[in-house]
Amino acid sequence: MTVNVSTHPDAIRAILGLVKPGLGRMETSLARLAETDDAILAPMLSTVLPGTGKRLRPALALLIGRLALTDAEALNQMAVGVELLHTASLVHDDIVDESDTRHGGATLFARVGNALAVLVGDYLFSQAAQACVATGNLDVVRLFAETLGAMAQGQIDDANRQLGGRGAWETLSRERYYGTIRGKTASLFVLACKGTGLLSGLSVDQVAGLHAYGENLGLAFQVFDDILDFTATEAELGKPVGSDLRQGTITLPVILMRDAALVDGRFWAAVQAEDVDLQVQLVQQSGAIDLAQAEADALVARARTALTALPAGTERDALDALAQYVTQRAH
Amino acid sequence: MTVNVSTHPDAIRAILGLVKPGLGRMETSLARLAETDDAILAPMLSTVLPGTGKRLRPALALLIGRLALTDAEALNQMAVGVELLHTASLVHDDIVDESDTRHGGATLFARVGNALAVLVGDYLFSQAAQACVATGNLDVVRLFAETLGAMAQGQIDDANRQLGGRGAWETLSRERYYGTIRGKTASLFVLACKGTGLLSGLSVDQVAGLHAYGENLGLAFQVFDDILDFTATEAELGKPVGSDLRQGTITLPVILMRDAALVDGRFWAAVQAEDVDLQVQLVQQSGAIDLAQAEADALVARARTALTALPAGTERDALDALAQYVTQRAH
Repeated sequence: MTVNVSTHPDAIRAILGLVKPGLGRMETSLARLAETDDAILAPMLSTVLPGTGKRLRPALALLIGRLALTDAEALNQMAVGVELLHTASLVHDDIVDESDTRHGGATLFARVGNALAVLVGDYLFSQAAQACVATGNLDVVRLFAETLGAMAQGQIDDANRQLGGRGAWETLSRERYYGTIRGKTASLFVLACKGTGLLSGLSVDQVAGLHAYGENLGLAFQVFDDILDFTATEAELGKPVGSDLRQGTITLPVILMRDAALVDGRFWAAVQAEDVDLQVQLVQQSGAIDLAQAEADALVARARTALTALPAGTERDALDALAQYVTQRAH
Repeated sequence: MTVNVSTHPDAIRAILGLVKPGLGRMETSLARLAETDDAILAPMLSTVLPGTGKRLRPALALLIGRLALTDAEALNQMAVGVELLHTASLVHDDIVDESDTRHGGATLFARVGNALAVLVGDYLFSQAAQACVATGNLDVVRLFAETLGAMAQGQIDDANRQLGGRGAWETLSRERYYGTIRGKTASLFVLACKGTGLLSGLSVDQVAGLHAYGENLGLAFQVFDDILDFTATEAELGKPVGSDLRQGTITLPVILMRDAALVDGRFWAAVQAEDVDLQVQLVQQSGAIDLAQAEADALVARARTALTALPAGTERDALDALAQYVTQRAH
């Protein structure tokens, strides 16, 4: 696959420029949330709410909102709700994974411990729900509530993709992998895209197109994340290469390696010997990364095709470029 | 205080008889939730959803629904939403308190560990939100979202009522105590009562009356719970007497004991010596239990007064009897 000029960093910056005022408004809303009178809660919120992430999900909502939505505050609440749900789920994910660092900084779990991190996550779920309610659209709130469940279910599934015994290694299917990442990752992209479509009163076909776009984009995003875990450097990842295998989690490259019989008994022997460096090396050399990249590319192609439901123009071009970007980013 | 005939166990059974069909329908809905195809989730849901609790909160919703609501399925979803939010919060509370048992059985936290219990709690929050959305009333969903936040904030506050140092013992105020239990306990009673009033299209005055009833009832419930921790037997409590003090948590009897100067230096000495039995004994002998009981009675009186906003009849009488019951129950 050749690098499209539209995915050049400057082009991405130009795309985000389209929604810069909306992202600024969202950041103001998030900052205001952290300015609570509650002296215990305020410093904890201040560590998780400021804008260190890519803000990719709210950017999708804001781009789509440009198509037809005239109520700027409703769109802002949609962006806030999506980003808060993302933040809340990261707070709980770090508990589940017992992660001490994220993007190079200490996690809330590491800072305040298990109990308070559970409760701050719950508080953020509440704030996310309140933002979705503030859009005034019950369909948006319904999708939000379903998304919260899909994400939790995906994370629960994830905890069962472990290489704990030869059974999981032999039976974990590609379909099961996709079911898991559809819940834990893609559902939130669907909320951002389809939710904004519902809020904007777009047609049934357009909303269906946004659903397909968000889902395929989210799946591609996670597949590429799982590829990067093998191909990026530790500096780019902010964590050791092969972290998934180190946690015993089977991802798509490993499944494809097994299904295409690209590996001999050495991989399972390396699992039993707990030699993760060798496991990573075997995956890297097997050709499975190329197979996984082909699947990510196919998902991106499907996301781009789904965009034909939308009217041509600046926003559709920007969504098209973002779809290409998610499997070409460095981290 | 004399025991009112209407709080006799037979009378309470008669009250619950009024909502027996509704409670049965709710149990069916909860059981169906546990019958998910997800082989990992199903057994975990089956341990937390069956009806072992008192179902007091959904019973309140169902009683109030009898006043004016004709949509039986909307009322069922309200009851389901209230009970699921309660269940979800208990799952996370047991994590926060590291509790291995509840009502004599093993907690989900003890059965499946920290990570899965966090995620199952999140899944239950999602199901609670979906039930509230299924009422079709955005005001109900807004109140639900606010309640989730108030409960989390109350629990966070709770974690800061510890006797960790003399500072907390000297400064924790009665007002702060009530602020904490208003969030962690009373807010859910408000959701059950006020939420059903909103759903039923009751007048502004009636909804305000239900808000006041639910809040005062919930506060009285928690104050009485905190009294029982000193006055009930270990068999009745299902945990050691003085569990709050054992966890270092200051509750109303201790605050009143301090504020009324009912205790000498022996209490603080017992705290420093970690002699909880002596602490409990000093509270029991101080007269502070009677002061706390008087506050619970005053809250119940306020709840009963608030009911005058509702039309006279069977339902109002039942709500009145339930208000007296919460501070006379054995556990």
